[in-house]
Amino acid sequence: MNFVFLCAIINEGDFMQRYFINNEQVNNDIINIIGEDVHHIKTVMRMKTGEKVMACTDEVNYLCEIISITDIVKLKVLEVIIENNELPVSVTIAQGLVRREKTEEVIRRITELGASEYIPVVMKRSVVKANNEKLDRWGRIVKEASEQSHRNKLLTISSPITLKELINKKEEYDLCLFAHFDEDSNNLDFYIKNNRIKKILVLVGPEGGFDQSEVDLLKTNGFKVVSLGKRVLRTETAPLFLMSVISNEFEE
Amino acid sequence: MNFVFLCAIINEGDFMQRYFINNEQVNNDIINIIGEDVHHIKTVMRMKTGEKVMACTDEVNYLCEIISITDIVKLKVLEVIIENNELPVSVTIAQGLVRREKTEEVIRRITELGASEYIPVVMKRSVVKANNEKLDRWGRIVKEASEQSHRNKLLTISSPITLKELINKKEEYDLCLFAHFDEDSNNLDFYIKNNRIKKILVLVGPEGGFDQSEVDLLKTNGFKVVSLGKRVLRTETAPLFLMSVISNEFEE
Repeated sequence: MNFVFLCAIINEGDFMQRYFINNEQVNNDIINIIGEDVHHIKTVMRMKTGEKVMACTDEVNYLCEIISITDIVKLKVLEVIIENNELPVSVTIAQGLVRREKTEEVIRRITELGASEYIPVVMKRSVVKANNEKLDRWGRIVKEASEQSHRNKLLTISSPITLKELINKKEEYDLCLFAHFDEDSNNLDFYIKNNRIKKILVLVGPEGGFDQSEVDLLKTNGFKVVSLGKRVLRTETAPLFLMSVISNEFEE
Repeated sequence: MNFVFLCAIINEGDFMQRYFINNEQVNNDIINIIGEDVHHIKTVMRMKTGEKVMACTDEVNYLCEIISITDIVKLKVLEVIIENNELPVSVTIAQGLVRREKTEEVIRRITELGASEYIPVVMKRSVVKANNEKLDRWGRIVKEASEQSHRNKLLTISSPITLKELINKKEEYDLCLFAHFDEDSNNLDFYIKNNRIKKILVLVGPEGGFDQSEVDLLKTNGFKVVSLGKRVLRTETAPLFLMSVISNEFEE
């Protein structure tokens, strides 16, 4: 999703309209807004020349004034704002396939909370079947949540994979965890009090939790068991707990 | 809400039906289930004598067998299980009045995450009006979430109060915080790394955040400013972040 899109900041006190742009759209102090955002500026927002917007790349925000509106919208850069709101650690949340509304809730919240990637995983107790039809819709949810939370980067959503495929990806991460409670489990602090960690993968079970064969397979493959406190959290709450604690730990 | 109610454990691997009971219902090794739960046992669950249920007080769980089903259901205690899943700290989440579906989402999740109390607060930027009509419905949400998460105690929900009324309650707490970002804000760890804290109050703003006059009033009255990381969290996400981090900190 490396194209321009529009970010509506809904937080009062920061009504500045945001646009994600590519570096190629920046030409010295002029930025060209193209594609769907032009329609949004002209027709939805009914903005006029002279009004201000924020154009955002992965790393820089440009505070701009609209100088012309035709088939493209031209912006003049007034100020360059360096603002990095990304977590200093990359967190991938993998989750047993769950129902659509739960998936969407999780995607929305973990985007706000700074996650890098979401991977749905086909697991024994998943009550829904894998399908890719929702990827577009999920992308829009990520976009909206990124706008609202002032993210610099977009969460990546993977197509559903099997547990074995997930396990095969373990070398990509410094730390692989799964949220479960048994005699081997420790709380999150136990695992993340190591500042050298740069990439974390955490797998959360579907509504019915992990099958024992899945627990065994994960342990055999070096995944560590993380417990999330004494209460039984729903599958859609667990990722928010994980992201909150990780964010609080790494942004100290 | 000091009456008996039924807890349906939906977590696979723990299908035991749970009932919250009063101590008065326990008579040596016999427990009487009364009221709405009788209907639930007989008609909804279609349980028979000989089947097992868990009867729970604030402090003890009784593993029981059903010995008779008439206008009341009699249980025989097979085993007393001491299980305390409550946080070692009491956390009150106060929140600017928000829309119904957001309130319900917050109540459900903070119940799971171990909160003690929820107080809706009438604030300048609240877009909805206070009403008490929903207290019954909210009680049912608390009940369901308590069942699912194996809480021992029920979250208390207060009727909506004003900000001044909230401030007047400050002496009841060891630590009063509000979630906001300015030059005085610190992260949660800064405030809670004090093990003597037993009761925490955290106020989260409504969708539009705090009015500056509210920020000033809170600070004047000794409320401390807590920031929740670099990203802008929605009002319904902030309480989950707070509860997750507090739970992780105090249950270490």
